[in-house]
Amino acid sequence: MSEPHAQITETPTTFNSVTPELVGAVMAAVHAQRPDIVRSLVSDLTPSDMAWVLEQLSEEERQPLLDLLQTDLDPKVLVELDDSVRDQVIGQMGPANVAAAAAELDSDDAVDLIGDLGAEEREQVLAAMAAEDRAEIEQALAYDEDTAGRLMQRELVAVPQNWSVGEVIDYLRESTDELPEDFYDVIVIDGGRKPVGTVALGTLVRTKRPVLVADIMEDDPYTLPVGTSQEDVAHLFRDENLVSAPVVDADGKLVGVITVDDVVDIIDEEAEKDIMGLAGAGQADIYSDVKETVRARLPWLAVNLITALIASSVIALFQDEIKLVVALAVLAPIVASMGGNAGTQTLAVAVRALATQELTARNAARFIGKEVVVGSLNGVALALVVGGIAWIWFGEWRIGAIIGAAIVANLIAACFSGTIIPLSLNRMKIDPAVSSGVFLTTVTDVLGFFVFLGLAAIFLI
Amino acid sequence: MSEPHAQITETPTTFNSVTPELVGAVMAAVHAQRPDIVRSLVSDLTPSDMAWVLEQLSEEERQPLLDLLQTDLDPKVLVELDDSVRDQVIGQMGPANVAAAAAELDSDDAVDLIGDLGAEEREQVLAAMAAEDRAEIEQALAYDEDTAGRLMQRELVAVPQNWSVGEVIDYLRESTDELPEDFYDVIVIDGGRKPVGTVALGTLVRTKRPVLVADIMEDDPYTLPVGTSQEDVAHLFRDENLVSAPVVDADGKLVGVITVDDVVDIIDEEAEKDIMGLAGAGQADIYSDVKETVRARLPWLAVNLITALIASSVIALFQDEIKLVVALAVLAPIVASMGGNAGTQTLAVAVRALATQELTARNAARFIGKEVVVGSLNGVALALVVGGIAWIWFGEWRIGAIIGAAIVANLIAACFSGTIIPLSLNRMKIDPAVSSGVFLTTVTDVLGFFVFLGLAAIFLI
Repeated sequence: MSEPHAQITETPTTFNSVTPELVGAVMAAVHAQRPDIVRSLVSDLTPSDMAWVLEQLSEEERQPLLDLLQTDLDPKVLVELDDSVRDQVIGQMGPANVAAAAAELDSDDAVDLIGDLGAEEREQVLAAMAAEDRAEIEQALAYDEDTAGRLMQRELVAVPQNWSVGEVIDYLRESTDELPEDFYDVIVIDGGRKPVGTVALGTLVRTKRPVLVADIMEDDPYTLPVGTSQEDVAHLFRDENLVSAPVVDADGKLVGVITVDDVVDIIDEEAEKDIMGLAGAGQADIYSDVKETVRARLPWLAVNLITALIASSVIALFQDEIKLVVALAVLAPIVASMGGNAGTQTLAVAVRALATQELTARNAARFIGKEVVVGSLNGVALALVVGGIAWIWFGEWRIGAIIGAAIVANLIAACFSGTIIPLSLNRMKIDPAVSSGVFLTTVTDVLGFFVFLGLAAIFLI
Repeated sequence: MSEPHAQITETPTTFNSVTPELVGAVMAAVHAQRPDIVRSLVSDLTPSDMAWVLEQLSEEERQPLLDLLQTDLDPKVLVELDDSVRDQVIGQMGPANVAAAAAELDSDDAVDLIGDLGAEEREQVLAAMAAEDRAEIEQALAYDEDTAGRLMQRELVAVPQNWSVGEVIDYLRESTDELPEDFYDVIVIDGGRKPVGTVALGTLVRTKRPVLVADIMEDDPYTLPVGTSQEDVAHLFRDENLVSAPVVDADGKLVGVITVDDVVDIIDEEAEKDIMGLAGAGQADIYSDVKETVRARLPWLAVNLITALIASSVIALFQDEIKLVVALAVLAPIVASMGGNAGTQTLAVAVRALATQELTARNAARFIGKEVVVGSLNGVALALVVGGIAWIWFGEWRIGAIIGAAIVANLIAACFSGTIIPLSLNRMKIDPAVSSGVFLTTVTDVLGFFVFLGLAAIFLI
């Protein structure tokens, strides 16, 4: 039952029992062609630690290590690998080995593994699998990606509602082979295989044998239709502190179960999507190669270029004024930049609150109102400082007054846009994390330059 | 055992059984002074749904509802509330009610609740508690915030290693009152109360009564010292797919247990911290009031103002050139803006990879190298477009060539800085999520303006 791994007794700075030094030692043994040393170095590692070792290597470094380990590599390592690295490792393993690995995994992990493959690779791997396993995987792949149907595992414990605790325990003791490796709830079903309740194992073990499961079950369990999005699954688990939940098909029949370890990964993934979306970094991570990374990021830079060109054309409207007072060219970027920063602050809060369903039609107006007030107050504070500096710098109080006014106006617009843009995109079913930023920058740049240069054109020249 | 709640049978867009309409109905009943209707509307809600209802209301709207519910409010609602809202609700409840609520909660939730209070409020609440509860809470509060000691609950199931499965089950059946509400592992301890193994409940229930726990336990369990940071706890749970882990004191003795539901909240919190940090939005969320929000954001705007002023002073160096060729003032912000965007993309990837311990000393050089190549390629692509546009716009090929060269240089610098800045801050133990952005913008703004205007000064004028 026990997987050996380093026990932690001192306060650690990290729980990775693996270090860059270990990775170095493994590679040294690979280069010295000492498979025995390599195996002894990695044999104690948990799947996630082994995955980390593989991730630390470049594709070229990884090949000889995989060649050496091939049949010894624990299939669970594939599950723990980052997507980009996993793609490479799978390519390096070959279809037959991948099929063999998938057959050893829990159904949800096997589906995840095979679902991530390209169409051609997927066919090759499925062709190399046993007919029964293949059918099961293909059925799961029929569900949309990122839905409960794809996330669930088929291995579960379901019992009829007329069973007693004793009968359940006897059943569990006898059918060890068919049971999932880890489970936390027993699902109680009716004659039509519909879930009518769940019994947490913690409740089961402290109840006496003659008691009926129907009397101790949590009735009205949260049942997830196969089409439920992974975001909604994550929300439900987080809000209701669940560790597992039954999944049902269109007829309400039990078809699988989702456990909290998958949900932890989803929460992580969703947070990562929001961070990358706000930064316009696309889906490329540190393991993506140059081509993938350029492809993920260049479109966003191109979109931002349009924003920058629009902002420039606003400046171009005021070329005569700038020729007369060059200070305008020096100061204008400050107005745009402060607006962009303030808007980004608001935007991050709004995007996050939309993602967590805290920002709704009910409190949107209150939130927008607060942000406008915050924008005004921060605007006035910055306006006083910048106005003072501009006045002293260029010896002209009117420049100070004009830049101050422009900053107040731009910060109010920034905080207003930082709320209204994500709210509108969200209503239009466009992911606000990904697309809000460019609209926001357009507003703060265009408005920043226009108000400042426009006021200067009227009052200064 | 069962808490009633709306069962979900259709594919839902959200699992909140509560809607803005329900919140409206509750408030209508409050204003109509119909406590019976209010109670019937909210009596079916889970703690997290009730928390959501309270969060949707303004502080002023919330007061009459709390006055009406006071004694009926499930203490678990307090646990589910957002921090800012919880502060307000606790202030509205008064110390005696808070103390009564804390006494009903699991120890980790009670500590979380009381730990978040201000010093004065905390004293008042502790004074209103029973001596025993108070001592337990104070002991937990002695551990640093955001460590395993603060996160753990004291209620746990520990058994000696010479017990059989049957003895464990009998013990659990007899001592129902002292057991934690939810638990997933039985912790096996030696004579000195040191954890020597864990038995998952799923393993316990499928093992026959005479088998010894020592024979089925996962030995070498991950034990968390009380001082372990919450980030490290989250990493361990995520990487090793744990649902619970024992916590030990300095002598290695078992003092508590951390369960996955707390870890889910930590992962969420850490991701939120990174998002807010990158956006410079501080710790204020949508529930924070105007004062808290201004206080959270203004310092960051002030720091960014310094960056903007430095950038402006670079432009000021080239006032004579701008007077001669106003096109420079029109185009310069494009160079700075493209650099900022490209750098932010890299920065998000780097910050995230540092947070997940994927970016290490071992692969840092490879990552930096890749980013510089990506910066060059994206730079050349943008340079061709912008150079072409500038040439056509201002009818001068040299302006096109100069802005193109400046963009390539700035994008390379941006991608290099986007990696090296967070890596350096991380090495200096400064949170890269919070402070990288301002350094990055300084580089891309200063360099963008300087290279473009400098090249123009040399080759154009």
